[in-house]
Formats: sequence, structure tokens, C-alpha cells
Amino acid sequence: MSKILTASETAKWLKEHDDFLILTHRRPDGDTLGSAGALAQGLREQGKTVYVFANPEATPRYSGFVEDYIAPDDYKHKYMIAVDTASTGLFTKNANEYTDSIALCIDHHKSNTLYAEFACIDADKAACGEIIFEILMTMTGSISSAAAERLYVALSTDTGCFSFGNTTANTLYVASLLVEAGAPNKELNKTLFRTKSRGRMTIEGMLTSGLEYCFDNKVAIAAITLEMLETSGADEDDMDDIAAIPGSVEGVCVGITIRELSSEHDCKVSIRTKPPYDAQYICAKFGGGGHSQAAGFTMEKTIDEIKQALHEVLEEIM
Amino acid sequence: MSKILTASETAKWLKEHDDFLILTHRRPDGDTLGSAGALAQGLREQGKTVYVFANPEATPRYSGFVEDYIAPDDYKHKYMIAVDTASTGLFTKNANEYTDSIALCIDHHKSNTLYAEFACIDADKAACGEIIFEILMTMTGSISSAAAERLYVALSTDTGCFSFGNTTANTLYVASLLVEAGAPNKELNKTLFRTKSRGRMTIEGMLTSGLEYCFDNKVAIAAITLEMLETSGADEDDMDDIAAIPGSVEGVCVGITIRELSSEHDCKVSIRTKPPYDAQYICAKFGGGGHSQAAGFTMEKTIDEIKQALHEVLEEIM
Repeated sequence: MSKILTASETAKWLKEHDDFLILTHRRPDGDTLGSAGALAQGLREQGKTVYVFANPEATPRYSGFVEDYIAPDDYKHKYMIAVDTASTGLFTKNANEYTDSIALCIDHHKSNTLYAEFACIDADKAACGEIIFEILMTMTGSISSAAAERLYVALSTDTGCFSFGNTTANTLYVASLLVEAGAPNKELNKTLFRTKSRGRMTIEGMLTSGLEYCFDNKVAIAAITLEMLETSGADEDDMDDIAAIPGSVEGVCVGITIRELSSEHDCKVSIRTKPPYDAQYICAKFGGGGHSQAAGFTMEKTIDEIKQALHEVLEEIM
Repeated sequence: MSKILTASETAKWLKEHDDFLILTHRRPDGDTLGSAGALAQGLREQGKTVYVFANPEATPRYSGFVEDYIAPDDYKHKYMIAVDTASTGLFTKNANEYTDSIALCIDHHKSNTLYAEFACIDADKAACGEIIFEILMTMTGSISSAAAERLYVALSTDTGCFSFGNTTANTLYVASLLVEAGAPNKELNKTLFRTKSRGRMTIEGMLTSGLEYCFDNKVAIAAITLEMLETSGADEDDMDDIAAIPGSVEGVCVGITIRELSSEHDCKVSIRTKPPYDAQYICAKFGGGGHSQAAGFTMEKTIDEIKQALHEVLEEIM
């Protein structure tokens, strides 16, 4: 159980200590890597020795925002700091030896298991980067352009460029200060939000042009076959949040994405719903789980067989 | 030639006058209608008599943000105010009789022709709504939730939910104050940015899955046939900014969209480029025009014939 610190107490703790190593979570996103890079940058500007623990799962999309701070093999840290990581199970495997000795955790997940000695948790923040901003501002009263750029990546990616429901007045206010401090929002937005890989563009096109509608157009079903994946050239990175597409059609309340995994008899089903429809209820019928508005299951059946099975459950609830 | 007013001089002018009628531009977007609705709302809160001139081209997407203020037929205004409209040619036809007597123009277009008696122009603002915000704040020091909602529509739609290159620190700062004042950004973003009509979704899917790449994948070409339009059920509203898609593929420097208009021998070509490639240069070869990064032309040829013709010009510049 952690001792809980406010942002200003965390700032004080950071001032009083040194020789940090920052840990990020597996399948690292812009928030965990942007937060890590910004914290490393901001602390170095204050004369601290600080590195980021190499995350083997970092993709080119975000790895540039931490590459200047990656710890050399012989770095001896005194204090480990985890950012944006709700539980120790979410660290990458190469971090296993460290997960019992995290000194400080900075996070915005309500579900944080308080595994660190000290924890600065603020679940009202859209991104962990918003908390890092508050801490760095408390420490020095200003933010460098290098730290601002990394924090902008954290805030913008965790909020879908300020379009998700988690975006608050504070998120937008912090973003305005980051741009003021030199975060190149124009260039970052272009790369992060206004460009798609050719594979993503193609698989999205295949998916959306093949959407099937049923139950008075309230249900939209997308199928992603192994053949579509091969033809499109899409890789795993390109599949990020693709299950949100069927549910984003006007009037659709239940968006279903069925994807072939290893063979055509092995599928993953992702369901997104709008209230009152309950994705978890539907998925539980097939042994799956998740949240009320986003859930999933896997099934060793073909896409057509799964559609048939889903139809029966949908008949009951629609 | 207008007399130029600052935002605070405009606030003073509005305080000293009354009985306003607000004009919006043709093909009205979220900025012109959101600005009009917010200005009407804000001025009414100060006891002014003010209406918005009905815009017959307003679509359901934005018409709700002005419907409470539409002028009755017998309304006698004293002063006309134009918002977000760069020249008198941009008003709708039913406003023709008024365009010589606009008292005040509030706009963020550098190209404003200064047709009004007084003009408050700030080309550094991403949206006209940012200027309206400044004026209303100068007048009363606060913003109501009803005005904030309409200004949020103005700011967010003109910046692609804060992702376009025109988004400044001030845009984000004003957005934060609007959310603070009660703009329901979560619901607005969902409707405006995270939902697509079924027609749009289908035509986008057809377009993206059929993209052709050439010149070492630096050029992407999309074709939209009349048959695709009919099959998808997409209407004119659904075609908004669709020409941006080919150029949004990673690595593509020249994005071309060829669309059949009245017949397969009558096409509109839209070209978007990244520097150093010049869309205007390409389109000028076919008698078209535009800007260096976005230009177009029409041609009485089939899609295949146009591709062939474009290929020759592209060979020269690529």
C-alpha cells in the first residue's frame, strides 16, 4: 500500500532525491512514453541524474520521445519511478526484477493498485502527462520546449487530440501552456492524428466498405479476415482501436468487429455499445468480458458461425 | 473600405448600438453559425435585440446552434453584423439586398475585403469564434454556457478538433475557458468528430480501399464514380474534405481525388500536395487553380483519361 502524495509533495520528494530510473508500461502509448521523456527531461534540467528504462515494445511512433534518455546497461539507479502504469503486471517482462521496489508511481488510473512506496494518483486527469506537468511546474515554475513537446504527445494521444470524453478544461488549459512553451503542435498533430499508414488506410477501407447493418441499422458488423490482413499489408500496430469503427456510424448502437486470428476457425470479437446496450452482457454469453460499453471474447468458430450466434443473442436484447 | 476596430472597440460599439441582424456565409460551417449563435446569445443576455438572418443552406449538423435566434419576417433591424465572411460574394442569395449596408464585420480571414462600415479582423485567430469570445468577454467578463457551447462548435470545427495547423495556444486556452463555462465538449465532440454518416463511412471505405499508388508510392490517386456515390448513398454533405484522404497516407506527397460530376465524361480533380510539390502548378496545366498545397480543376474526360493526362505532368515533376 502506497503512501499517497499530492503533486506538490511529489515535487518535494523529487527535489530531495536523485539517481532515478523511469519505468513505462507494456504496449507503450504516447502517454507513458511522453510522460517518461518529459519527466526525464524536466529533472535533468534541474541537475538530476535520471534515465528511462528501455521498453522493448516501444514502436517508432513514440520511441523518439524517450531515446535521449534510455539508461545504459551499467546505470545504477537509486529510485525507480513508474509512470502511467496501474499495476506491476503491466510492466514489460525485462522489468520483472524491479517491480517489487518501485519508489514512486505517478498515474491517472483509478484502478492503480498502489504497488509503489509513494504514489501520486489523480484519476481526474485525462493523461498522466497532465500530472507530470503539474509536478514540473511546481518544481521550477516553467517548462522547457523539449519537455513541453513530450507532454503534448502524452496529453494529445490519450485524448484523441482532445476529442475523447476524458478531455477536461484542465487538459485544454495545460495543452495551451505547452504550445505556448514551444510544443510543435502543428507538426505533432500531423504525424499523430492526420497521417495513416498505407496498411491502416487499406484495411480501414476494406472494413468500412464491407460493414453489414442489421436490426434496423442499430447494429453494424465488421469482419477482418486473414486474407484482408495479408492483402492490405496491415500489421498489428495498424489495428489500434480499429474496433471503434463500426460503432462510429451515425445511429449505430452496437458495433461488432470479428477478426480471424490464427485461422478462419479462431476469431476475436470486439463489441462496442452505446447505452442502454451492454457489451459486457453480450460477451459474457460467450465467456468473454470487459466493460459495459466495450467488451470482447474469442471463439473457435468461423466469422459466419459467429455472426449467426451473435444474431441469436442480439434478437433477445435489441 | 472599413474603419478597423479592435475587439474592445467592437465591444464598445456593440454596447452603444442595438437592433442587430447577424449574417452568416453560404455553405455555412460550424464557425459562421456557431459565431452567429454565440453573438446573438451573448448580446441578448445584455438586453439587446438581436436575430440571426436565416441561412437557407444551413444543414442539420449546425442549424440547431442558431435556431433560437432566427429573425422573423417582420423583424426591422438597424445594424447588420456579418460573421466569418470574407467578402460580400460569400453571402447567400437571399441576403443580396443587404450586402451593401453591413455595419460591422467580425472575421478571421486575412482576405477580408473590408466591405463593412466597421471591421474587426484578426487573421491570427483560428476561428471567428475566438474573436467573438474576446468581444463578449470584454463586454461582460464572463460567458454563459449557451454562448460557450456555440463558441466551442466554432473553435472545434474550424480546427478539426484542435488538430489543424491553425490551432494556437490561444485557441486551446479559449477552448479550456469554454469547457469551464459549461460547453458540453464530450457530447459535441462525439457528434461532430467521432460519428460518421453511413453514406460517408461507405464512400470513404470504397475510396480508401481502392487507392492507387504510383511514383514510388509518393502519389496516391482516388476515384469517385457516380456509381460509387449511388451505391454508398453518400450525399454532398458527406463529401466534405474527402479530397484530403489520399494525401493523408504516410509517405504520400501528392494526393489526387478524381470525381465524376454529371457524367463519366465530366470530372472534378482535387489535388493536395506537401512541399516541394506544387498543387497549383499541376492544376494550372489543366486550366485550374487554387493554392500551392491544395488546388483543383474540372475536365470533360473520363477518370482513366484524366489519370493518363496527370501521369504525364507528374512524370515531369516527380
